[in-house]
Parts: sequence; C-alpha cells; structure tokens
Amino acid sequence: MKIDVLTLFPSMFTSVLDESIIGRAKDNDIVDINYIDIRSFSNNKHKKVDDYPYGGGPGMVMKPEPIYRAIQSVKEDNSRVIYLSPKGKVFNQGLANDFSKEEHLIFLCGHYEGIDNRIIDDYVTDIISIGDYVLTGGEIPAMAVIDSVVRLIPGVLKSEESFKDESHYNGLLEAPQYTRPREFKGNKVPDILLSGNHKKINEWRKNESLKLTYKNRPDLLEKINLSEKEKNIIKNNE
Amino acid sequence: MKIDVLTLFPSMFTSVLDESIIGRAKDNDIVDINYIDIRSFSNNKHKKVDDYPYGGGPGMVMKPEPIYRAIQSVKEDNSRVIYLSPKGKVFNQGLANDFSKEEHLIFLCGHYEGIDNRIIDDYVTDIISIGDYVLTGGEIPAMAVIDSVVRLIPGVLKSEESFKDESHYNGLLEAPQYTRPREFKGNKVPDILLSGNHKKINEWRKNESLKLTYKNRPDLLEKINLSEKEKNIIKNNE
Repeated sequence: MKIDVLTLFPSMFTSVLDESIIGRAKDNDIVDINYIDIRSFSNNKHKKVDDYPYGGGPGMVMKPEPIYRAIQSVKEDNSRVIYLSPKGKVFNQGLANDFSKEEHLIFLCGHYEGIDNRIIDDYVTDIISIGDYVLTGGEIPAMAVIDSVVRLIPGVLKSEESFKDESHYNGLLEAPQYTRPREFKGNKVPDILLSGNHKKINEWRKNESLKLTYKNRPDLLEKINLSEKEKNIIKNNE
Repeated sequence: MKIDVLTLFPSMFTSVLDESIIGRAKDNDIVDINYIDIRSFSNNKHKKVDDYPYGGGPGMVMKPEPIYRAIQSVKEDNSRVIYLSPKGKVFNQGLANDFSKEEHLIFLCGHYEGIDNRIIDDYVTDIISIGDYVLTGGEIPAMAVIDSVVRLIPGVLKSEESFKDESHYNGLLEAPQYTRPREFKGNKVPDILLSGNHKKINEWRKNESLKLTYKNRPDLLEKINLSEKEKNIIKNNE
C-alpha cells in the first residue's frame, strides 16, 4: 500500500509512525508512507496557505490552490482521498477494514478553521471524523486512521490470531487480562485463569466480556444478537 | 495544568505536541507536559515490562509492577489517572471540557494486549476510548485527548471566539467555509457570503449546518431540540 499524507506539519509524523508495528511494516516494504508539505505548493512569495473566510467569522481558512496542487502531485486513478474533519462520518473498524484493501490512500490534514469547501466537494472521496471532539488539526486523526488501517494489511501483524480477540473485532469489549505475579499488592489473579481448563477459561472470558460491555458500552450490545444465555449473564450481573 | 504521560514510547510525543497550539501553551507555561518511560521502572535486568497472559491467548500483557511504580512517581492527591483503551467509555467534547478543569492529568498508554487488570481496578480513575477502532497502543489516543483538552484551557486559544462555531460545540457540524479566490476551477464562492448581509449569512450558515449534519451525522440531530422551522429546512432538503 502507498500512503501520502498532505499536511502543513510533516515533521509531526516521523517519530510517531516509525515506531512499533507501523515502522516494521515500512521496513518490510508492506507500506510506503510519504509526508508532503502543502506549504511547498504555495506560489505565494511568503508561502501563504490560508486566508480570511468569506462572509466573516473567526480564524483562517486554508486556500484551495496549494491543496489542489498537492493532491494532483500524488493522485492516481485508484487513489482514495481522505479528508480528516469533525464534519465527516465517524471512523470505525469496518471503515479501517475497507481502507486496508486499497492500493493508495491520500490523507489530507486541515488546520485553522478548515479548508476551502470547493476542495471537499470536488477532490475528496471520504470525509472522516475520528470522534466527537475538536482537535487542532487533522494530523493526529490521520495517525490514528493510518495505524488502525496498516495493522489490518496481511503480513503486518506477526500472527493472524493476535487481533481476533481484541475489543471491537467481535462486537464486545475484551475480557480483563492478567500476567505475573500471581499476587500483586494483595490482589490475586482469578483462579480460573490458572486452572488449565481452556473450555472454562473461554467461558469466563466471554462472560467477563459481556459484563464489561454492558458496563462501559451498552450501546454495542444493541448491535449484536445475544442468546438467552448471554442475556441471563448480563441480567444476573445487574 | 500538569500532564504526565506514562508510555513505553516517550519519543513518539515530542514532535507532535511541540507543534502549533499545544507548543504555544507549553511555551507560555499554561501547561507542563512530561513524558515518563514506563520501562525505566522495571527492576528486571533486561528491563522487561511484559509477560504471557494467564489463561493463555496471543500476545503479551504489560506487567503491573513497572506501571504501578511509574504512577506512584507522579501521582498526587488530585491526580486523574486516565488509561487509554478500546474497553473504555467513548471520549467526547463534554469529557474534554471536564478534563480541562483538572490540575493534574496522568495518561497511561498501554501496548501489546493491554495491561494487567489489577492496575485498572485499583489505580485508574478513567478508562477512555477515542473511538471504535483498534490501535497499536495508547500513544495516539493520548495525543488526541491532550490536544482536545489543552485547547480548552483559558488563555490557550487566541480568542474565545475561535472555537465557538466549530463542529461539536453547538451540537451541529460546522457550515462550509470559503476563502479567496472567488472563483476556483470554475467553482464560485456562494454569492450570499459576498453580500455583506450578516443576518442572511448567519441564516445561510445555520441552514448549511443543519443540512450537513443531517447528511453526515443524523444521530447528532436526535440529541438536540429542533424548532419547526429547522425541521422544515431538513425536510425540504431531502
């Protein structure tokens, strides 16, 4: 996969996406990520990229020309152009999965009061919000989307298994995890996890997943078909 | 405000949070952000911080002792200890506002298959998810939360005005923005924005906000009381 990030702050990215799993995917040539400075596409002698909004109001709006030229410099026939904005559809694991099958993703990071809407109308294929909170720019959202997408490309994670149990893969939150020591500050690891009985351990984990999801994210339970047994587990825990 | 970030990857943060608004807040001593390497609290001679999960399963779990010691090294009576995890409650602008009033935030970033649950039970005050997607670690989510929180501290943004119109402040998505040139690639800025009639401009922006919210985020409209006039605007646009 090829990823091009169009941003006014290319230096924000390198130390983040060179670490850990994404860094390994780059080293193994599974993904090729480039950071492109939108400012370098300004023809203005002061490299100006923003201007006052028409109709008044606070802040500055990013001008269309430098963004247009930045997009054209990398765009191919199969490119998906993703603009990160709180105005967009909410990103989720299903969209991460869709994006992970593309050959070329272009991430457009806005700043200030956003970008000229003519760019959004004519050159953006997806407007994506990572959640209902206001951020300074699209850079941190782009990092989140890139991280979640690249993890899903075959060959990036060491084993297919390592993500199947995680929260949001099966619609439930993941059960509590424990590791050594068996006792820490007076708190012991639940006996069942030391039993070696894998059937009972899986049952316990499923039940804990249900209870945790009910506690923290009851909205997720509405989206899945619970069996009568599962409904009883939740009911008995209330 | 004091912020301590506990992480295995402190170097991920500096280039991100030194830029733009957060960097200015640091320079102006409005916020003091420190990055603390959890690994430096491992007493193991190989600085090991993870171990196999009890009960089996893929991946590794972060051990409780180094995290406990890292928290104790910075915790004060009024500290809020925020663990970033897809298991948590979903972050939103209301929570950002809550956090912005605190004196001390500790962000705990997990990695691998998460952290030993005894830390979550006994030492974490808030489990926060930035959205329904799986990321490699808590670092990018911590950046998102810190950015959204620091922006809200009085004195950080240049003018109180500059965020009041933004998406998610009034429950609607922000209207399209335009700047010069008036015509770009054959597309003109809407005439109303050049009219100088601020009453009509505000009305147009409100209507565009309603239409955009209906298109991209109909779920947000369920949370606010729309007037009959506003309902008609949406209805006539269908």
